[in-house]
Amino acid sequence: MSDDGFRPSLDPREVPEPIRLAIGTLIVDCAAAIDGGQLERWPDYFTEACVYRIIARSEFDKGRPIGFLTCDNRAMLGDRIRAMRSANVFQPHVYRHVLSPPRILGQRAGAFEVETSYVVIRTAIPEGAMMVFSAGRYLDEIVLEAGTPRLRSRTVITDSDSIDMLLVMPI
Amino acid sequence: MSDDGFRPSLDPREVPEPIRLAIGTLIVDCAAAIDGGQLERWPDYFTEACVYRIIARSEFDKGRPIGFLTCDNRAMLGDRIRAMRSANVFQPHVYRHVLSPPRILGQRAGAFEVETSYVVIRTAIPEGAMMVFSAGRYLDEIVLEAGTPRLRSRTVITDSDSIDMLLVMPI
Amino acid sequence: MSDDGFRPSLDPREVPEPIRLAIGTLIVDCAAAIDGGQLERWPDYFTEACVYRIIARSEFDKGRPIGFLTCDNRAMLGDRIRAMRSANVFQPHVYRHVLSPPRILGQRAGAFEVETSYVVIRTAIPEGAMMVFSAGRYLDEIVLEAGTPRLRSRTVITDSDSIDMLLVMPI
Repeated sequence: MSDDGFRPSLDPREVPEPIRLAIGTLIVDCAAAIDGGQLERWPDYFTEACVYRIIARSEFDKGRPIGFLTCDNRAMLGDRIRAMRSANVFQPHVYRHVLSPPRILGQRAGAFEVETSYVVIRTAIPEGAMMVFSAGRYLDEIVLEAGTPRLRSRTVITDSDSIDMLLVMPI
Repeated sequence: MSDDGFRPSLDPREVPEPIRLAIGTLIVDCAAAIDGGQLERWPDYFTEACVYRIIARSEFDKGRPIGFLTCDNRAMLGDRIRAMRSANVFQPHVYRHVLSPPRILGQRAGAFEVETSYVVIRTAIPEGAMMVFSAGRYLDEIVLEAGTPRLRSRTVITDSDSIDMLLVMPI
Repeated sequence: MSDDGFRPSLDPREVPEPIRLAIGTLIVDCAAAIDGGQLERWPDYFTEACVYRIIARSEFDKGRPIGFLTCDNRAMLGDRIRAMRSANVFQPHVYRHVLSPPRILGQRAGAFEVETSYVVIRTAIPEGAMMVFSAGRYLDEIVLEAGTPRLRSRTVITDSDSIDMLLVMPI
């Protein structure tokens, strides 16, 4: 078969149990910090030097690194959250991530590469209208720092080409 | 960081494997009983003395215990199902829970505290229209009774403030 | 309790860890091949002699084997993909599966029976409109062939009675 870019999961026997569990915990905890509105926690799930970007699938597939957003280190993630807090005194929406079980794809340069499909449901407050805000996948590089798993890189690849231009919330 | 109420997962090494698996199984089986329409099974996933409530996130966050619904023991759960059966001879909707991997947050008074994000898709029968019926999270207290995991308490925290007033289906 | 067709999960202690992990990996990888558009990979997740069918829940519950689609072997799955490729030079939609943790229900004739709830979000390209395309469950028979897990049978049971008649994409 020609190279279509598909990456199957690693044989689970190649991933030690404690690492598999640590990876799974990191991914759900990171989403819980966003959904719970405890956004100041969110940068803690990244390494000091890190990459966080949100990019449309069509751009990602063309190999274009032009995303909706790119942050190059943990401090930028914190800046982003502070900007969001000052812009949105009263939060008009809440978010809910629902995640598939993560796929551990490989190891590279000391990190585990992990892909996780997500859907984010946005609920308007107080009216309660719900909509699919984003669907797509995370492509992560996860390292262990003194036993604590952290994101060295997270690429959020959105299935949709368009995204709310006023987006300030991390996905 | 100030206390923002965020609760990270327990270190997975602190949760014995059989307990982790038993918890995961309970949560998906309980949802399957609802989605499969085998609602008489649903109370079996609770302890005899139990709490089941559905509450809007905005109320929960304010510490108000006023929910859409509260049941105080397993018998009340059964009553609820019987009332639903008699009111809805022909079920006009079916439900589908899709759940994130559960987060085991801690242990308290002999129970594991577990949080699980969910989305429920409701499909109208026979037309087939689908909608997001509810998104939110379960906050559970799970105990082992003679090796069988059961919900001592389930709080369904809905992201939306409003919910179908004719709601009779458990979430 | 009368036989309502409900099937609880096997006690997790009855399922060896490597098998549980292999099953989980198969299910998420199979969805990833579809969502990634690498559809030629999809038949690889089935055994040579296999059954793949998509059937509405209302038909399935009545015991009627009349589905939207039935394939009886792996070659038919490949035919289906080729037909899809020739009919849709420019793919106007992308798909995203989000899956609950799988439920391992039992063993039968050398296979594990596994049920997984899913929701598929369809995104129109390039406009970006997102909708719930299908919600339902997989009912799978999974075997190990020389250590590799494969689907001997997959029944996709859609909650909705109606489905896009031009459906060519596997679910």
